[in-house]
Amino acid sequence: MQQERNIKLTVAYDGTAYHGFQRQKNALGIQEIIETKLSRIFGHPLKTTGAGRTDTGVHAYGQTINFYTSGTIPVQNIPQAARSVLPPDIVITAAEEVAPAFHARRSAQSKVYLYHVLQTPVADPLRRNYSWHITQSLDVAKMNAAACLICGTHDFSAFRSANRSPAKPVKTIFAAGCRSRLPLLEFYFWGDGFLYHMVRNLVGTLVDVGRGRLTTEQFAAVLASRDRRQAGMAAPPQGLYLQEVRYEKEK
Amino acid sequence: MQQERNIKLTVAYDGTAYHGFQRQKNALGIQEIIETKLSRIFGHPLKTTGAGRTDTGVHAYGQTINFYTSGTIPVQNIPQAARSVLPPDIVITAAEEVAPAFHARRSAQSKVYLYHVLQTPVADPLRRNYSWHITQSLDVAKMNAAACLICGTHDFSAFRSANRSPAKPVKTIFAAGCRSRLPLLEFYFWGDGFLYHMVRNLVGTLVDVGRGRLTTEQFAAVLASRDRRQAGMAAPPQGLYLQEVRYEKEK
Repeated sequence: MQQERNIKLTVAYDGTAYHGFQRQKNALGIQEIIETKLSRIFGHPLKTTGAGRTDTGVHAYGQTINFYTSGTIPVQNIPQAARSVLPPDIVITAAEEVAPAFHARRSAQSKVYLYHVLQTPVADPLRRNYSWHITQSLDVAKMNAAACLICGTHDFSAFRSANRSPAKPVKTIFAAGCRSRLPLLEFYFWGDGFLYHMVRNLVGTLVDVGRGRLTTEQFAAVLASRDRRQAGMAAPPQGLYLQEVRYEKEK
Repeated sequence: MQQERNIKLTVAYDGTAYHGFQRQKNALGIQEIIETKLSRIFGHPLKTTGAGRTDTGVHAYGQTINFYTSGTIPVQNIPQAARSVLPPDIVITAAEEVAPAFHARRSAQSKVYLYHVLQTPVADPLRRNYSWHITQSLDVAKMNAAACLICGTHDFSAFRSANRSPAKPVKTIFAAGCRSRLPLLEFYFWGDGFLYHMVRNLVGTLVDVGRGRLTTEQFAAVLASRDRRQAGMAAPPQGLYLQEVRYEKEK
């Protein structure tokens, strides 16, 4: 039997038109498009593993997948070959051959998410699918101070999805903050893992701080409560970007 | 008979989903959407005049229209009322009552167009509808020098549309240039008028300068030739923005 190569791909996509990343039964996910279209390049059906799901409308610059193949295309030719078969809202930005044990989800050491808020008096029709539009002026310094409170190891049960099966709620956040690049406000989160809807719930609650509905101390109390009912509403999906998935000892 | 008000609206739109701005017989233009949806606010059918057409895929932050109405809605309430009836890719950013003689096209003194080139090795799926993606590195200084040559009053026949009925080809350009905001390169053009496809033909030819296919001197010769066959290909529509329409004595 021919030795199969393990291929790692970095994927950027516009999530607007799809029902999230993950392959699903009754809706079109990005993973299904990738498997179907790339199978033409590799000459056999593909079964890919993704680093993580993203919801409908969520974008990615650094989603990562891997799969095993007997196909012979040189790895450096994959991005361009993929371009000719994939729709323009899904782009393979990098490809490499990795060790057989590499697993896009289980080998991931950390992930970086970005969230974009557009703070303008009037909506921008060209950014409607790529940011959360808020007309009110937000206090960036307070949001940044509150975001910094999540750095370190915490039980993030207060920011988990309301209706989701249990996962280990303790995660380590290496960096978090909010910076102003007016009219954009950019939140960033770098951590060893994230609960389902955790980033959107964090941003929704941080925006409550920015609006003055919640003090930084109250935000700290929400985190400490481990009670989902204490946190704010989830921020809408279209402002969220899976920016990067990091792996150990990357060459 | 009731005195009719003349209303001027500033319109921003994402041109991706529409067959241009202008009302057409067999395709959906942005003007038709605006007239149909806003008629609900004003209580009668609307007939609008636009400052200028934009092609399929071309965007606007400052398209301007006017129309006469017997409707009684206060002018300051129009943007928000429009938001409730228009699709999210068309936004009324400003409204004012103007003198009866104001005409969005004939009263316009000048227009500003922007054009965005995305210069990156790999395509960005989130910017595919909002820029022209070029992988090659372009010489911004040379493109800027060439763009400056069009300032002043010239016969722009070399940059007119190949298949278009005659219009006066002499236009005055007040400012033109190219600046780098990597990975974006931004072209801007401010002039008293523009021929059909003129900006896209200018950008296509300026990019030839940036690639080194044409010298600045050769660009000047193309302009002087008044011969459409001398200029480069039209740049694609999705990088073009009608940024602003300026009127005299604006309050």
